[in-house]
Amino acid sequence: MPISRLQKLQPLLAEKGLDALLVSLPENYRYLSGFTGSSGWLLISYSQAILATDSRYSEQARQETHDFEIVQIKQALASWLPGMASSLGWHKLGFEADHVCYSDYHKLCETIKAIKVNLELIPTTGLVEHLRSIKEPAELGLIIKAAELTDAAFAHIKSTTRAGVTEKETAWEIEKFFRLNGSEGVPFEIIVASGPDSALPHARPTERAIKPGEPVLIDMGARIGGYCSDFSRALCLGKADKTLQEIYNIVLEAQLTAIDRIEPGMAACEADKLARDVIERAGYGSNFGHSLGHGVGLAIHELPTLSPTSPDLLEDDMVFTIEPGIYVAGYGGVRIEDTVTLEKGKIKVLTKSAKVLQQD
Amino acid sequence: MPISRLQKLQPLLAEKGLDALLVSLPENYRYLSGFTGSSGWLLISYSQAILATDSRYSEQARQETHDFEIVQIKQALASWLPGMASSLGWHKLGFEADHVCYSDYHKLCETIKAIKVNLELIPTTGLVEHLRSIKEPAELGLIIKAAELTDAAFAHIKSTTRAGVTEKETAWEIEKFFRLNGSEGVPFEIIVASGPDSALPHARPTERAIKPGEPVLIDMGARIGGYCSDFSRALCLGKADKTLQEIYNIVLEAQLTAIDRIEPGMAACEADKLARDVIERAGYGSNFGHSLGHGVGLAIHELPTLSPTSPDLLEDDMVFTIEPGIYVAGYGGVRIEDTVTLEKGKIKVLTKSAKVLQQD
Repeated sequence: MPISRLQKLQPLLAEKGLDALLVSLPENYRYLSGFTGSSGWLLISYSQAILATDSRYSEQARQETHDFEIVQIKQALASWLPGMASSLGWHKLGFEADHVCYSDYHKLCETIKAIKVNLELIPTTGLVEHLRSIKEPAELGLIIKAAELTDAAFAHIKSTTRAGVTEKETAWEIEKFFRLNGSEGVPFEIIVASGPDSALPHARPTERAIKPGEPVLIDMGARIGGYCSDFSRALCLGKADKTLQEIYNIVLEAQLTAIDRIEPGMAACEADKLARDVIERAGYGSNFGHSLGHGVGLAIHELPTLSPTSPDLLEDDMVFTIEPGIYVAGYGGVRIEDTVTLEKGKIKVLTKSAKVLQQD
Repeated sequence: MPISRLQKLQPLLAEKGLDALLVSLPENYRYLSGFTGSSGWLLISYSQAILATDSRYSEQARQETHDFEIVQIKQALASWLPGMASSLGWHKLGFEADHVCYSDYHKLCETIKAIKVNLELIPTTGLVEHLRSIKEPAELGLIIKAAELTDAAFAHIKSTTRAGVTEKETAWEIEKFFRLNGSEGVPFEIIVASGPDSALPHARPTERAIKPGEPVLIDMGARIGGYCSDFSRALCLGKADKTLQEIYNIVLEAQLTAIDRIEPGMAACEADKLARDVIERAGYGSNFGHSLGHGVGLAIHELPTLSPTSPDLLEDDMVFTIEPGIYVAGYGGVRIEDTVTLEKGKIKVLTKSAKVLQQD
């Protein structure tokens, strides 16, 4: 598996005029090498694949990777990289400009000057991330498993939750279900937000007890084999008032419109607009402050970005969320989110739980 | 609380000749402002304290902070920062060079040129991190609570674990104990590594069942009010063989030596050497590949760094780990770790669990 991914990357090096690429984002080095340690770098050229890591991880690196030469390093990047790159005959070394901090870049430049090697550092963005955005069948299979586990967790919580239980207790019940049924931790802190708390799109569960008649926003996901799902539903235990009904129906229409009309070849900003137009026409444009969605894979947020300013193009075999929302400060909010894929020209929804506001 | 922290920071701005500092590391902005959202920036000058965040977090920012002006931003840093800094009359803006990526730095420079403002970006490192390394009494109080909860979790797992239970089951039992007793999640994935798995300093729990007579390495911590504890013990269910006994005694001697002799004013690299010398003299120098310890606070790894190359100085009211280890590939490993503070000239150990290898 990793070999064919390297083969996809190598033409991109040629396109950018690079002799080699330094890969530093953990999800990127995991994708290319299989290494899951939290500290390491890959160096990928046309003929070499090197994994550099320190003694804490070198044994693990040997166990997890194939076809990578493991180099055990001890010090900061600048102390070994310029010398190694030069000894391998590289002159143009790409680096991930979104994931290398200014300090490391600056120290590398200083070392290159000090030891007088002919090495140019070339910023790149999104090379591996773009490869990662198009899922292979095995990757999609893991995301589908994570989505199925998410649906099961949602069915579990719907059958057990009731008014009077706190947000924290509800979130912990969901997390226990995930963990005991095969999720590798949870990819993000589960959100259970009730009443006015649900007006915060990224609320944290509190000791607040859920009351009948108010919005309850649940946002959760599982991780299987490294791959994530992401999912939100808004619920109401008991009878929803008119405002909540109205908001819910608008968000649902926005989400279903996007699911129905997004297709490969569409600009991601156009996809965002499909849902945003529905919400704007209903007069709630300023209450939908976030993006329509984001890619999901080894990271819970990855390419493509479905936002008004996204430069991304949607393609078959991408996996992403569709998650419009309306948030009214002091009152509450609604978000409806599914993890979906583009398959043979159409959206296929991977999280299949019903979308029903009232749970009575 | 945040105000006095700002008052500690402002003289450092003057020292570096800065008009203001951009703070981007989440632990740093939480420390200064109280804001716990996962996306935001602070701008701190002599007379201003601004928190910039997007719509997902602006309501939360208003709830969590005092004395900060909340500015809701929509786009990337480069689109709003140069204009805002310039309109506030700033010409020298510090940024956290370890936490701003090359891309953002580069885009900021381009915008500054394009809109022709007189603004210089000045790299800084560790300004807020150094403030954070000296704990206030309230911070120490939270770390002590996290340490007490860790001791309680260890007592719980010692009383419930037995041979035949898997590493994963043991880790989950610990995590449940933490979560049900007030820990805010866990600050890092709990390590339970048995037999040869314990030779990987950062092993992940597997389905391997713990066997009698082999080393079991447990590394775990709690989080209370944002503040972490960090703790490791090596155990043996049943009779340890000679090698394990020998390794254990060396690591214990190394740890106790460091606890006994570390004092304020000591270079952190000297502290590391106190323990490393014991292990080297015993012939296991090459089996202790990591640092002696690291600061603990809002982050699980922060200043000071206790390593052979650390430039840090140890001071009263710092909190850090002392965690020597010996790892023998294919056989197993031992690490003994406590969270400690320097109080009135001496090490005070905060995690108080007994250090006993054999659990029979």
